[in-house]
Amino acid sequence: MDHLENQEILLYQNKIREALANQQIDQFRAEYLELHPYDQAAVFEEQPEEIRKQIYSYLSPDETAEIMENVNWENADVYFTEMYSRYAAQVLAEMSADDAVDILKEMDKNKVASFITIMEKESADEIKHLLHYEDKTAGSIMTTEFVSVSATDTVREAMLHLRAEAPDAETIYYTYVVDQDKKLVGVISLRNLIIAEKDWLISEVMSDRIVSVDVGGDQEHAAQMMRDYDFLALPVVDFQNHILGIITVDDILDVMEEEADEDYSRLAGVSDTEKGEDSAFVSARKRLPWLVVLLFLGMITASMISRFENTLSQVAILASFIPLIGGMGGNTGTQALAVAVRGMATGDVAKRGKMRMVMREGLTGIITGLSCGIVITIVVTIWQKDFFLGLLVGLSIFATLIIATLAGAIIPLLMHKLNIDPAIASGPFITTINDIISILIYFGLATAFMGLLTQ
Amino acid sequence: MDHLENQEILLYQNKIREALANQQIDQFRAEYLELHPYDQAAVFEEQPEEIRKQIYSYLSPDETAEIMENVNWENADVYFTEMYSRYAAQVLAEMSADDAVDILKEMDKNKVASFITIMEKESADEIKHLLHYEDKTAGSIMTTEFVSVSATDTVREAMLHLRAEAPDAETIYYTYVVDQDKKLVGVISLRNLIIAEKDWLISEVMSDRIVSVDVGGDQEHAAQMMRDYDFLALPVVDFQNHILGIITVDDILDVMEEEADEDYSRLAGVSDTEKGEDSAFVSARKRLPWLVVLLFLGMITASMISRFENTLSQVAILASFIPLIGGMGGNTGTQALAVAVRGMATGDVAKRGKMRMVMREGLTGIITGLSCGIVITIVVTIWQKDFFLGLLVGLSIFATLIIATLAGAIIPLLMHKLNIDPAIASGPFITTINDIISILIYFGLATAFMGLLTQ
Repeated sequence: MDHLENQEILLYQNKIREALANQQIDQFRAEYLELHPYDQAAVFEEQPEEIRKQIYSYLSPDETAEIMENVNWENADVYFTEMYSRYAAQVLAEMSADDAVDILKEMDKNKVASFITIMEKESADEIKHLLHYEDKTAGSIMTTEFVSVSATDTVREAMLHLRAEAPDAETIYYTYVVDQDKKLVGVISLRNLIIAEKDWLISEVMSDRIVSVDVGGDQEHAAQMMRDYDFLALPVVDFQNHILGIITVDDILDVMEEEADEDYSRLAGVSDTEKGEDSAFVSARKRLPWLVVLLFLGMITASMISRFENTLSQVAILASFIPLIGGMGGNTGTQALAVAVRGMATGDVAKRGKMRMVMREGLTGIITGLSCGIVITIVVTIWQKDFFLGLLVGLSIFATLIIATLAGAIIPLLMHKLNIDPAIASGPFITTINDIISILIYFGLATAFMGLLTQ
Repeated sequence: MDHLENQEILLYQNKIREALANQQIDQFRAEYLELHPYDQAAVFEEQPEEIRKQIYSYLSPDETAEIMENVNWENADVYFTEMYSRYAAQVLAEMSADDAVDILKEMDKNKVASFITIMEKESADEIKHLLHYEDKTAGSIMTTEFVSVSATDTVREAMLHLRAEAPDAETIYYTYVVDQDKKLVGVISLRNLIIAEKDWLISEVMSDRIVSVDVGGDQEHAAQMMRDYDFLALPVVDFQNHILGIITVDDILDVMEEEADEDYSRLAGVSDTEKGEDSAFVSARKRLPWLVVLLFLGMITASMISRFENTLSQVAILASFIPLIGGMGGNTGTQALAVAVRGMATGDVAKRGKMRMVMREGLTGIITGLSCGIVITIVVTIWQKDFFLGLLVGLSIFATLIIATLAGAIIPLLMHKLNIDPAIASGPFITTINDIISILIYFGLATAFMGLLTQ
């Protein structure tokens, strides 16, 4: 069965609705559990509340758990509220711990507490433990369901252990080797375990080149390492190198999506929490803060220009080039910003040195400024038959591009130094800053040129 | 051994340099091959040419192959040119086919041909085969080194087969089940293979809920499915459902990084080929095309404003609000654009319908426009002590925000319809378009208001 397209989902929906309508539990289960959990979730999320409740009653907690691992976290709160608390608690207990925690984090404290109290102790402790970790840290995306063996076990013992753990473990493709006080001493892939002779010792076949992440470390760092080393899972350790859990690659895929989304949204000045399903009012509320800030930054620009009212009333044509110059400043600034932010994300800047990057951007600004400046000087001179006007606009573009490019590169670097995520320096922000700078340059020069301009 | 930091790399470098300087092959191999291939590559790439050549002479082709799978593709061309052709061909043959192809695609046709001719036939055919697939398709990132069994095999036979294939296969964690004419009929994870009884038939334990991608499909679609279904590998099939290869999750991590990078760069109007190591001249050359286009779009805006020269010379203060209004238009447009592009990337728009998204953006525009319009009307009225001027600016903001928001949403949708990647509609482009629109609105209204404005 291939990836379900919408119409296919509808088809299944109808079959399943029918089975539900006719209370045919067996037929429903036959139809529904055939689907991949991701598609089960897709169908489930399309159903109205009463049908969803019927589905809970037809499925065991661990079957529902599989669905809940694939639904949209924002909505999960609703679903768990619909269930009988005991059932909900069982579902949460059956879910892989990291997914359960992701959902609980969206719920209000009291509800979480009530679920945890009626949950069987083992899962409850696990979840309580995971709930402690701060958002966006390695700890917050790890799961505690990993397989570990002792270095003194044989391959045969390890394989038997694996077979037993297989149904519950998040992954069985890496087995982590720990010493008596649970410190991480090695790792062995199932691939190597299978090739190895059954009576060899784990210590003989394991690798002690362990790549691990700190529990408090940034999830983005974990993603970077997963990408660099092509692992399927990474062990998460504390400062004493005790293994606390593992991060699996499927969670890293979500992290990467999330982080990319965040940077992209910030560059555009939209909240990365904005979703396609948001109503216009929600979207507006999320976008307005930005727009209002920019509105007042824009007022600063306006008040600056108003100072040059005299200059303008004498040479009104000057106004025509305001958007051009402001726009060019904004665009080059955003270009430099994007390159800088990416360079820092990939660690490229760190490797080559900040100073070198700034120098490079400065030179880039000079080259682009010179090119654009010359072009515009010629164009304006011909168009307005006024060389000095052309020169004025050209010089302004030249100066603006250099300063804007430098600003785009330096501002994120400064933010980085102040431990602010550089990606926050979004396009609109840089654009508006550079707007103001460019206007100052333009009218500064204009006032100086006054005498020379044909009026 | 934890993820190598730069200083650690330097430390290893010195040890390794020393071993190289003293021609201590064994010590070099002991030190160097201890490292994870990713770190081997990091150290290798820091070395000058003569040292690199020495390294080739100390390592077997398959050892070098591991390094080459981890170096920066852009530089790989150089490395393979340094090697003796026969050695280079052996290294390419030992590399996992998809990585080898990625590197060959960066080389010039003749060099590729010369390598392939001296390569042992099997690998040569494989690579020639993969070279055919278009960039950014599923075929271009798949590897042909997967494990397949027949539905009539027993679990025991399958496991023996796996053990034999383990050293070469890209992944052994999924085994694909094919019928006599190589059509994909099922899949079984190693997890289930291990749990299953040894004498069961594969047909009894395999899953026939196969999720696969078309060889010509978009790599982004494959990434989406990998994320949705949490697989470690996806089978790639032709139209007759013959399995041609598999895409492994480690390649998907790279795809996601690449695609995110691309969207981000485009939003900022930088070429996604721009690298931190580029010289200022290279960067400038990559950014200039954009800037020149925007320069001329800006000239259009300028020529429009110049038409209102009379209006301006009479009420010079009007000019002060040009950047404010243009900027707001640009910013809202970029916000709407970002949401639309993201929505299309995640398939969210397809799910909820284009019309619904446009309606939503329109309403969002009305709300934000109304809010900002009222604020600015009040502020300008108080500041300039001129209600009609305030009203003029307020109305312009109101109209601009509605139109700009719609433009930001509709333009990428149109591009999508024309099969142009919507992400190409970068921020600067939308910004400039909305600049022009907003200026027209502003001066249109201004001319209408003329009589009412205090002069």
